[in-house]
Amino acid sequence: MSKNLTTRSEDYSKWYNELVVKADLAENSGVRGCMVIKPSGYAIWEKMQAELDRMFKETGHSNAYFPLFVPKSMFEAEEKNAEGFAKECAIVTHYRLKNDPDKPGKLMVDPNAKLEEELIVRPTSEAIIWSTYKGWVQSYRDLPLLINQWANVVRWEMRTRLFLRTAEFLWQEGHTAHATKDEAIEESEKMMHVYADFVENFMAIPVIKGLKTETERFAGAEETYCIEALMQDGKALQAGTSHFLGQNFAKAFDVKFANAEGKQEYVWGTSWGVSTRLMGALVMTHSDDKGLVLPPNLAPIQVVIVPIFKTDEELEIISKVVNELVSAFKKIKIAVKFDNRTTQKPGFKFAEWELKGVPVRIAVGPKDLENGTFEVARRDTLSKEIISKDSVVSYINDLLDQIQKDLFDKALDYRENHITEVDSFEEFKEVLENKGGFVAAHWDGTAETEEKIKELTKATIRCIPLNRVEVSGKCMYTGAESTGRVLFAKAY
Amino acid sequence: MSKNLTTRSEDYSKWYNELVVKADLAENSGVRGCMVIKPSGYAIWEKMQAELDRMFKETGHSNAYFPLFVPKSMFEAEEKNAEGFAKECAIVTHYRLKNDPDKPGKLMVDPNAKLEEELIVRPTSEAIIWSTYKGWVQSYRDLPLLINQWANVVRWEMRTRLFLRTAEFLWQEGHTAHATKDEAIEESEKMMHVYADFVENFMAIPVIKGLKTETERFAGAEETYCIEALMQDGKALQAGTSHFLGQNFAKAFDVKFANAEGKQEYVWGTSWGVSTRLMGALVMTHSDDKGLVLPPNLAPIQVVIVPIFKTDEELEIISKVVNELVSAFKKIKIAVKFDNRTTQKPGFKFAEWELKGVPVRIAVGPKDLENGTFEVARRDTLSKEIISKDSVVSYINDLLDQIQKDLFDKALDYRENHITEVDSFEEFKEVLENKGGFVAAHWDGTAETEEKIKELTKATIRCIPLNRVEVSGKCMYTGAESTGRVLFAKAY
Repeated sequence: MSKNLTTRSEDYSKWYNELVVKADLAENSGVRGCMVIKPSGYAIWEKMQAELDRMFKETGHSNAYFPLFVPKSMFEAEEKNAEGFAKECAIVTHYRLKNDPDKPGKLMVDPNAKLEEELIVRPTSEAIIWSTYKGWVQSYRDLPLLINQWANVVRWEMRTRLFLRTAEFLWQEGHTAHATKDEAIEESEKMMHVYADFVENFMAIPVIKGLKTETERFAGAEETYCIEALMQDGKALQAGTSHFLGQNFAKAFDVKFANAEGKQEYVWGTSWGVSTRLMGALVMTHSDDKGLVLPPNLAPIQVVIVPIFKTDEELEIISKVVNELVSAFKKIKIAVKFDNRTTQKPGFKFAEWELKGVPVRIAVGPKDLENGTFEVARRDTLSKEIISKDSVVSYINDLLDQIQKDLFDKALDYRENHITEVDSFEEFKEVLENKGGFVAAHWDGTAETEEKIKELTKATIRCIPLNRVEVSGKCMYTGAESTGRVLFAKAY
Repeated sequence: MSKNLTTRSEDYSKWYNELVVKADLAENSGVRGCMVIKPSGYAIWEKMQAELDRMFKETGHSNAYFPLFVPKSMFEAEEKNAEGFAKECAIVTHYRLKNDPDKPGKLMVDPNAKLEEELIVRPTSEAIIWSTYKGWVQSYRDLPLLINQWANVVRWEMRTRLFLRTAEFLWQEGHTAHATKDEAIEESEKMMHVYADFVENFMAIPVIKGLKTETERFAGAEETYCIEALMQDGKALQAGTSHFLGQNFAKAFDVKFANAEGKQEYVWGTSWGVSTRLMGALVMTHSDDKGLVLPPNLAPIQVVIVPIFKTDEELEIISKVVNELVSAFKKIKIAVKFDNRTTQKPGFKFAEWELKGVPVRIAVGPKDLENGTFEVARRDTLSKEIISKDSVVSYINDLLDQIQKDLFDKALDYRENHITEVDSFEEFKEVLENKGGFVAAHWDGTAETEEKIKELTKATIRCIPLNRVEVSGKCMYTGAESTGRVLFAKAY
């Protein structure tokens, strides 16, 4: 099973593609650029959703649902946003098929069923939501609006990759409206922190919080906050973004409110989102050449129990002990599976659960029964220990916390070892080529230089870190003045 | 507030439309036929989702996600299904907009970005899912596949109504694959029972389980099981359907498996779904002229506490008592809200929470503090009682159960009083006109008669009840032989 998996050192990209499919997370569909998220993958996404949803509600947000389609005139109302998405959107032009007179049994688009106005399949929902908010906001008492939506969106990408870049993907998009600029900025920062908290503490992926440059900013935003993660191949991955929209959408859709003095003002907005792309980050941050490595928080199965037996009688005796153990785990909400298949050998099962990333494996055979012990193996380190029956439940309860922590620490360690300060463009290229990771360098602040560096190296400015030290220096490319380092990297 | 609500006797249809909007459940959007589900409405839908999802998982199903788009050639593969949905589907033909050279700032569909093959926005997902299942099933060991999807679907309806009939709606669709016909039939029946259990015990809406006639069957199914509910205006509403698909989709998409003897066979299928339409059923079953009436199981707020006070000091004293009460409710997972707004009078608040359907209202003023009591009002019966402070939590805990039960009983009572047996077509028309509800009548079993009756009366056969007594009789319309009564009704 895992024998067939390409290793990371052989071909990281191939390893990823193979792993996603072999671990049954997702596969390409018969529809160009669209994926099927399989039950094993979707179960992980559901865990992410549940935790994020809890965090959104805890911070005062409610869920709602807005239409899939955006009429063209609505889509183009906020010009920058429209321009940013116009080149990659799916467009509905007709609403009926009819029998094809030339091909019996085949259908054709009915030319008499052309829409008066084309509908864009939402690539993001600012337009449709702000056109709705216009009806919801009259006075400052109606603000803030703190709304989130779980939805599918479509961006017509030409080169797609499972989870990382697909024509259709699943995401959540928060859209909030505020009476003041400060409050809107506070909201966009707050949600960046919520994302960072989630990705670090729930997914065990360390991130750097920062601001996007104008070039990399969301189309229609005044400011884009982001969290950037680092994959094992030294490439960065944008894990979430939160946008301060200023009054751009309020102006485009004429959303005004009467302030406490009765004066009409435009509303201030934010939007923020994370997507199934996080599934890609999860796979690429923790997994290894044997397969997935899942942090316990996200593992649909946290503990798998594999019986070692030769006869039905042995299995029966083992099952009695295991069933008690299963009950004990369930009582403390540990997700456990007893793999009592008689059609597969233990070695096959070990490899299968390793491929699928189950954090802890317990093996139990006749000898363990005699000794009152279990063999406990960690998926992340592949280490094994013999644990006595009496303490195994509390041992594993602690072990799951430990694994969660260790995965984060390991990823953090890698990330910290892959932030390199450079002061010349030669050095910059050298680090990008031979080491990868984030490269902290001075930049003159112009879009031209940013573009030129991207052209020459494929590296982009991932972010201006929020915690950067203001220190004057010279742009590594042009030598012009800079007030602090920004983080470059090649990115997904 | 509720003063403005049209009453049910004045105009039931208008009452419904107004109520959905005034209670903040949903509204029409700027996109033809598509609705916005507002936070108050979505919170109810989330409760439905959570419970259904739990029931699906308990019966062995997993969630997955399949593409939004279906290429035309895939869509038309199962002919009956394609024919059934061809006339009402949104079709994507292009994938890019460009600047309109004649209209500065406006966009137009880029004629150079025409898709080679048109994509249908899924009206239902059998085609895309069975084309995927082909890759998942080789042997009987791969069966059954028990999969559910939560998704949006689009059916281009010409006359739409909030929740009841919208161009885009949210639903879940189960799609299962089995090795035998019996197992597939068992699954479709099981899911009908799951739906009935959910709608009756969670939504407090009684339903009749039955089979659809061939005319009313899902396009592409061999048999459609349904649950039918009755609204307060005497019209029926199909609340959920479960289809036995035979081998129709397996044959259309060539999904075969090797049985235990190694012989190739076509797979047997089912599909089943319920949608945001249930929100409409919920509103129309329980609500009254003052607004929504929500069963406690579905109420995002189950208990609202309104303080009666004249001064800030009074509010402060009341708040102390109320905060203790709130903690006590939260401890036993009762969703409670303390409406301590100082901007609105109690009477306004009472009307608002009545409109929004909160099952129980507690009012507390200085006199109650003196007496150690609370005034407890039921939303469904509008009755009030004075309850001592010491017993109020357990009283309300029981009361919520009682309300849930009473709502079901009341609806059941109405339904039972609106099933009328008739033996002549004159009587049939008379009952439909003056009383409404289900009319149990003999029918000759032909689609022609069914069609003729529909033409003359607008009534359709809602179902052939599963529990009907086989008894010979004469079709009320043609006088031909019949083996039992079927249920007719006008329907949503």
